[in-house]
Amino acid sequence: MRHRIRPIRPADKEAVHNLLGRIAIFEPHEVEVARELIGESLAGSPDYVIHVAESDDSEPATAGVPAHIIGYVCHGHNPVTDALYDLYWIAVDPAMQSRGVGRALLTHAEACVRETGGRGVVIDTSSRSEYAPARALYERSGYSLVAKIPDYYKPGDALLIYTKML
Amino acid sequence: MRHRIRPIRPADKEAVHNLLGRIAIFEPHEVEVARELIGESLAGSPDYVIHVAESDDSEPATAGVPAHIIGYVCHGHNPVTDALYDLYWIAVDPAMQSRGVGRALLTHAEACVRETGGRGVVIDTSSRSEYAPARALYERSGYSLVAKIPDYYKPGDALLIYTKML
Repeated sequence: MRHRIRPIRPADKEAVHNLLGRIAIFEPHEVEVARELIGESLAGSPDYVIHVAESDDSEPATAGVPAHIIGYVCHGHNPVTDALYDLYWIAVDPAMQSRGVGRALLTHAEACVRETGGRGVVIDTSSRSEYAPARALYERSGYSLVAKIPDYYKPGDALLIYTKML
Repeated sequence: MRHRIRPIRPADKEAVHNLLGRIAIFEPHEVEVARELIGESLAGSPDYVIHVAESDDSEPATAGVPAHIIGYVCHGHNPVTDALYDLYWIAVDPAMQSRGVGRALLTHAEACVRETGGRGVVIDTSSRSEYAPARALYERSGYSLVAKIPDYYKPGDALLIYTKML
């Protein structure tokens, strides 16, 4: 999948909101939190850094279709740590998954963390089966599972914490 | 130690800020985050619920001294969970420690969580030796250590996660 990754702009807001609405595994209250962080980032908060993956409209498969947002990633310095960064959200359009976009977004966020002197990245995720592809991405990308807290998100849905020291 | 616990008021802001400044084990960037949450709570945010412990000036040991803030606790719903609450900060004036004020603040926050239908409380804390009294308080109060992430706050300073299901 040809795409480019760039910082989010105010004009992307609706497209990213719509993208979030298409991710079936995100719960409504999770989408609400994700949208709040987008708002704070666009309002200039340094706490949430957001990049989007935009399809490259020169690609034959999407010729004639304007470039559009096919994924995004939100990370930020965890303010109670010296230099660890949280990966708050990463999402790829359901129609564009399994094409390396998630991996590219994750690698991009890690590069930003490295550039700003970060020591590592922390990812909180869910034990639900729907998150298996996300967990596989983190493991392929060198993240280690360092904690599991049962019944966290809701009864039966554990919190898994992955870290990767850079 | 005779005291009463009540919701924070705008007039308490300076006293709680000063209290935070007297807690030697809090790092400057942690104090900054704690003060930000106080600001958000006083500005009406429902995400951060703050109660203060106020000394009871009818007590002989403090007779003649106006009632003052000797501790505070800040908790709130973790928005990515259905009904878990984070204990964000708990602090007791160094001159008033080991008198049950921390325990009373913790118990009070738990009662608030129960009243609002919360399933449990999550506490993130540090592995540093200075936090041993805090960890002992959590363990005495029925919290279980469910995760340890090395080199989290800074190299050599692990994150410990405690939970108590209510």
